[in-house]
This record gives sequence, structure tokens and C-alpha cells, in this order.
Amino acid sequence: MKIEVINTGSEILLGNTINTHLATLAKELFPLGFRIDRQATVPDGSAIGQALREALHRADGIIITGGLGPTSDDVTREIVAETIQAPLEFHNTVWQSIKDFFSKRNREVPENNRKQAFVPRGAEILQNSHGTAPGLWIRASWEGKEKLLILLPGPPRELLPMLTDELIPRLKAWGQRPPIIQATWSVIGMGESAVADQVEMFLKNLDNVEYGYCARNGQVDIRLISDEKTPIESAEKFFLETFGTRVFRSDGHPIESIVIRDAAIKQITIATAESCTGGLIAHRLTNIPGASNVFCGGWVAYSAAMKAGMLGIDPSLIEQEGVVSGAVASAMADAALRHAKADMAVATTGYAGPGGGTKQDPVGTCYIAWSVKGNKTDCERFLFPLDRESFKLRITQIALDGLRIRICSHTSIQQG
Amino acid sequence: MKIEVINTGSEILLGNTINTHLATLAKELFPLGFRIDRQATVPDGSAIGQALREALHRADGIIITGGLGPTSDDVTREIVAETIQAPLEFHNTVWQSIKDFFSKRNREVPENNRKQAFVPRGAEILQNSHGTAPGLWIRASWEGKEKLLILLPGPPRELLPMLTDELIPRLKAWGQRPPIIQATWSVIGMGESAVADQVEMFLKNLDNVEYGYCARNGQVDIRLISDEKTPIESAEKFFLETFGTRVFRSDGHPIESIVIRDAAIKQITIATAESCTGGLIAHRLTNIPGASNVFCGGWVAYSAAMKAGMLGIDPSLIEQEGVVSGAVASAMADAALRHAKADMAVATTGYAGPGGGTKQDPVGTCYIAWSVKGNKTDCERFLFPLDRESFKLRITQIALDGLRIRICSHTSIQQG
Repeated sequence: MKIEVINTGSEILLGNTINTHLATLAKELFPLGFRIDRQATVPDGSAIGQALREALHRADGIIITGGLGPTSDDVTREIVAETIQAPLEFHNTVWQSIKDFFSKRNREVPENNRKQAFVPRGAEILQNSHGTAPGLWIRASWEGKEKLLILLPGPPRELLPMLTDELIPRLKAWGQRPPIIQATWSVIGMGESAVADQVEMFLKNLDNVEYGYCARNGQVDIRLISDEKTPIESAEKFFLETFGTRVFRSDGHPIESIVIRDAAIKQITIATAESCTGGLIAHRLTNIPGASNVFCGGWVAYSAAMKAGMLGIDPSLIEQEGVVSGAVASAMADAALRHAKADMAVATTGYAGPGGGTKQDPVGTCYIAWSVKGNKTDCERFLFPLDRESFKLRITQIALDGLRIRICSHTSIQQG
Repeated sequence: MKIEVINTGSEILLGNTINTHLATLAKELFPLGFRIDRQATVPDGSAIGQALREALHRADGIIITGGLGPTSDDVTREIVAETIQAPLEFHNTVWQSIKDFFSKRNREVPENNRKQAFVPRGAEILQNSHGTAPGLWIRASWEGKEKLLILLPGPPRELLPMLTDELIPRLKAWGQRPPIIQATWSVIGMGESAVADQVEMFLKNLDNVEYGYCARNGQVDIRLISDEKTPIESAEKFFLETFGTRVFRSDGHPIESIVIRDAAIKQITIATAESCTGGLIAHRLTNIPGASNVFCGGWVAYSAAMKAGMLGIDPSLIEQEGVVSGAVASAMADAALRHAKADMAVATTGYAGPGGGTKQDPVGTCYIAWSVKGNKTDCERFLFPLDRESFKLRITQIALDGLRIRICSHTSIQQG
């Protein structure tokens, strides 16, 4: 069962939009036993037809996203209808839902939304609860074989609920595949070669497993795919022996979700005091449902004045040690812990660049401090000469991983 | 001149990594007059060869990312060499840079990095200043035509500097295309149809322009491409007449960069007090170089206790009005303005879900308040029944756009 994805939209090929649909679809399809074999991005227009014909030749199921909107450059529906020779027909129920969508919002139906009520003959409707373009589920015959075509709207807020509520249940019924197990472990703060060096021989000798590595922003993922549990379990055992607390089972979840999950289990509360990361640690933590049980709050003390004003850091300490220093990072973490009455706090101060920096602490320098109630505050210095956003992301990776490791050993620390 | 991009990596097709390379490449290539015609993602392995042969048939230039690493699943170099029949040869200078890379970091060269020093015959080296895999610039003959193949490493921190420092200068020399102008305007808080309704007739009658719309997270982009200035200028005039201050020239820049730029020009400082957006406004503002001239700092007052504790909001106000209320949002904005001694402040409080919410303020409710020094504080209520991350993103869009509009009219407000 081969599945391909075609993402349409000139904005993707112009770099104005990052394609997140592929990842969304892949993650939802995998547990059903489907893997995406290939993906293509094509501009709005006739290229959609060419890509569709090629995919129909190779794959059994094709998912096309985008181009179902009301504007003149939305032509996916028309091109699919023409390619598979299923004429577009006006669909009364769809038209009624479009009219309802607007009337609920006390708005007139714009005339150009009418084209969204035209549907290729024989297509089934996937309801769009967050927009006007219906998704389409189409069985078509191509080169003598039955193919499945799925058309989904481009905006993520429309695609996501349609995927969960309409598409997944149909795909389940369409024929679930034998389950495959995918497991991912991650190590933050080590290079890809260094990680691979320690596990490659073991993995090479492991039977019935497909494995791979992926390095990104200071995190190395080791991914295993198998249809058996045994190799997955023995790999996990080996990774723990090799890396100790440095490795964690991530399974595609970001480090912040591991932090929230583990802290919630141990009823640990967390506060943040951020300078150079500018709120990104708080943002990442609050992306996770249930964050409110763990994360009390945080300070984004961007200017030196705010570090003194918000957090009550002694201005003479800032003066003496410099705003980017281990002493200030530690004082920030301690202040956050105290003011928020939290169990743990993490603080960052550094030079994100492109401006700033000193001779001994150039752009890319960062101090991260972790404060744990009843323990000595730890502080580490890092140098990441990266662009601004990568710098922020890299530091938050280490800051969050430091929280994870401290949460792991929390009981023993308190006893010690 | 047709250019295609092939992104390799099973992690992309498994949904573990979001492909940002396509957008990065597109944005850098466009000003040189190159547009990407098509893109494909293929898994590590032999599928790379198939996709490459197809692309060689259609395109003049092919950029391949990923699969140049030291691990066993990195096979792009080998497959390209085989496809274009250019045998791999050991390259001494490359091997020396790899050894230097490790010795600078006081590390031994792992044995598996040696394969990165093998290069297809005739290839030119693109230096990798942030990793060990060199990029490759290869001229090959295919079906009697000369083709250009560019191989880039997968990790963004390696690809990005190589693109800027090594690839762009070569592409410029390779043959700059006649310049094309791309311009994008954005409107936040209106639907795609509503925007299109007001501009479609105008754009349809505009000569020598390619146009398109893109809707995402509460923002509608109108994109124009032309090789003449005149239609771009008359469209801008028309958009300003039609939408007033609601429209802004974005040109692919996010709203936060417009806010930082405009505030810096008018020397306006900004503070934030966030509850349901959890630091995302601060994070977005601090992504922009020069943010430190505008953004003083922010509070992430996630729990009710922290709203009282951090910001000094009267607990009885929270008790009376509820933590998610216009009164609390306004008090938060006022407190942030006052504590940070800023010119403007924005505050958010709401129910991100999946838990929480009340009968009259269900999950998805949010209050946003804007406080401007010397003016009455404005507060608006919104209802966005979205998933957690989309909810946060949508609210920050409106919060930031509200800042942009207030910055626009700042002088007149102070005079009024």
C-alpha cells in the first residue's frame, strides 16, 4: 500500500509558507500502519495535474492538500475532476453548510464561495468544521487499478480537525495495516557522530529493525522501526546503559513535553527567568496541555534594568559581574525560584547577536543556571555562534534537558 | 531555467522533522531571479536516485539536501556519484578540514567521518564552517544537456551558512536572471474570502502581474509577482485605500518584525504580560534582531497567584471578575506598562484548553488588552476554539497587530 502526498501552493515554493502538512499527515497515518512513500510540492495550476498523474502511476493512495479555497488560484478540485474524468456537480448539502458557516458568523455568503459547492461526481464529503471548503474522498480507477484520492484544505486549522474527525475514521475502516512500532530516543548536547559511534555496532547487529539518526539543534534522535517488540526493548536497555540519564525516550515528542509529563508525575513546579531566550522556554512549556499544573510563570527580563526591577537582582552584582555572567544567571534562577515559590527554576542570559558581546564573552555566549529548592544552584557556560533563532532554540534545548535530568533525580536529591 | 529541490530523509516522511529547507532555499534564490519549480521529499536510500533521474529530465538545476552525514543511512553522495557516473575519490583537503573540525573541539576524528572526504570526480567543494560534511557543486551532462547539481547538508545550522557564504556567490556568478519583484501585503483578523472579495476585481484587471492569496492563522497574504514596478505601486495604493491601517506590506516578514521596525523608528518601548499565550509574544518579539531597543521585558503570569504576585494585580479583582476577564487583562496591561516604564504594553488572558473554561467563557476564549502611555486601555474579547498551539499563535497575531496599528497612529494619539 503506497501513499504519496502532493502539497499544492505557490507560497510553499516561494518560501512564504513552511509546509507542516506532511509532518501532520505522517504522524497521524503511521499508527494506522501507513507510511508516506514520497511527497511533492507543486505550484498552483497545471503542475498539479502532472504531479497527480505521476503519483497515480506509482501509488495506491494520494493525499492532496490545498487549492480548495474560494479564490481564483484555487484549482485543485477542477484539476482532479478533469484528470480522473469525474465531472464537477453542484452539491446542495455542501452549499447549505457553506451558507450555514457564514450565517452563524452573521455574514453574507461571498459569491466566490459558491464554487466550493462543486464536487467531482461520486466523491464523498469530508466535513469542514472550521471553514467552507469540504474535503473530498474519491475512489478512482487509473491504469486498471483502484486508487484512493483524498483532497484536504490548505489552512492547518481546517485540515487538522478534518483529519482527526473525518479522515482517520475512514482510513481505519478502509483497511488497517499490520501494526508497526516506531520508537525514538534522543540525546541533547552530543554530536551525531559521537552518538552513532557508541550505538552503530549494536544497531547493525540487531535483527529485524530499520534504524536511522537525525540531528537537529543540539539533539540527536535515534529512530527504530520494527514489527516486533523484542529489538525495541533490547535497544532501550542498551541506550540506557550507554548514555545513562542523558538519553530519553522521545518518540517524536519535544523535550518540553517530557519535562511537563515527568514534573507532573512528581508534582514538581517550575519557574523561568529568561533574558537571551526571550520567553521561548515559557512558550515551549506552555505549548503542552497540562502545563498549568507544573509551570507557575516566568520573567522575561530583557533589559538590565528589568533584571533588577522585575527580579530584584542587586544592580551592583550586574555592574560588577556583567549582565551576561554566571553570577547573574544564578541570581536570576534563585530569584525566580523564590518569587514563584517553585521547586525548580531555570534562567538564561547571553548574547543572541547580531549586536552585543564582549571580547571574553562574544556573541553566542550564554549562561544557563538551574536552581532546585534546597540545593546549590548550578550554572554552565555555553558558546553557540549561531543565528538568533537557532541560538535561542539551542539554549532552550539545554535548559529544558537540564530540567528533565534534575526532575529524574529529584527524589534522591531531596533525600541526599 | 528550471530549478527543483529534492529533500532526503526518512525523518521528514515520518513526520519527525518539518522541512524548513525548501522555504530557506526559495527565499534566498528568489532575489537572484530563480524560482523553485517543484520539490520532492524522498526517504534515505534508492528512492533518491529515482527522484534525481526524474528531476534531471525536467530541470536545469537540482538542489539535494541531506544524506551527507557520517552515519550508515547517509547515502546521497554515493547515489549521486552512481547516477551521474562520476566515481567517488578521496579528497585530501576535505579530509584535512574534517580533522581540523574535530581537533579544534579537542576531539578525536571518529572513523565513520572518513567517508565524508570522498567526493564525486570533478565536483567543487562548498566549505562547511559548522560541520564536517562538505557541500558539493557538480556539473553533469544528462540526456545531452548540461545540468547543475548542488548537494547540501541536512542540519539547518550547517546548510544556512553554506548557503550564504558559498552557494549564493557561486549562483550569482553562474548567471543572474532578470530581476523579478515579489511583494506581499497582509491583513490580520479578516477571512480569505472577505479580503479577496474586495481586491479580486482590481487584481484581475491589473496587467503584467501574477497574484495569489494565502491564508494562515488569522492572516491573509496577498502576493504579487511582476517584472515591473508600476502594477506593484498601483496595487499598494489600492490596498491602502481599501483596508486602511488594517493592511501592511509584509513581504514575507512576520508581524513581529514590522512591530520591532516601526517601534524602533518611533522610539517606542514595549512590555508584555502574558497568561494564555505563555511567553509567545515575548518570544516572537525577541526573535527579531534589534528587539532589545524596543522590548523591555515581559511577565508570563500563568497561574492566578502569579498574576497577583508578579504584577501586583488586586486579588479581589481576580476573585470578582474571574482570572479570564477583560478587567484582569486590562489590569495586566496597565501593570506591565507601569512596572516596565514602557510606552506600550499588551496583555493576554484566556483558556487555551483542552481543560478549563466556563459556561459563558468556554475554552478558546481570550481577552487581549493594549495599554498606551497617557491613553485609555483598550480590551477586546475573542473566541478561537482551536488546538492549543494554534490558539496561542492566533492570539499573538492579533496582539502584535494591535501593537502595530497603535504604533502607526502613535504621534496622533499623543497629540490628541
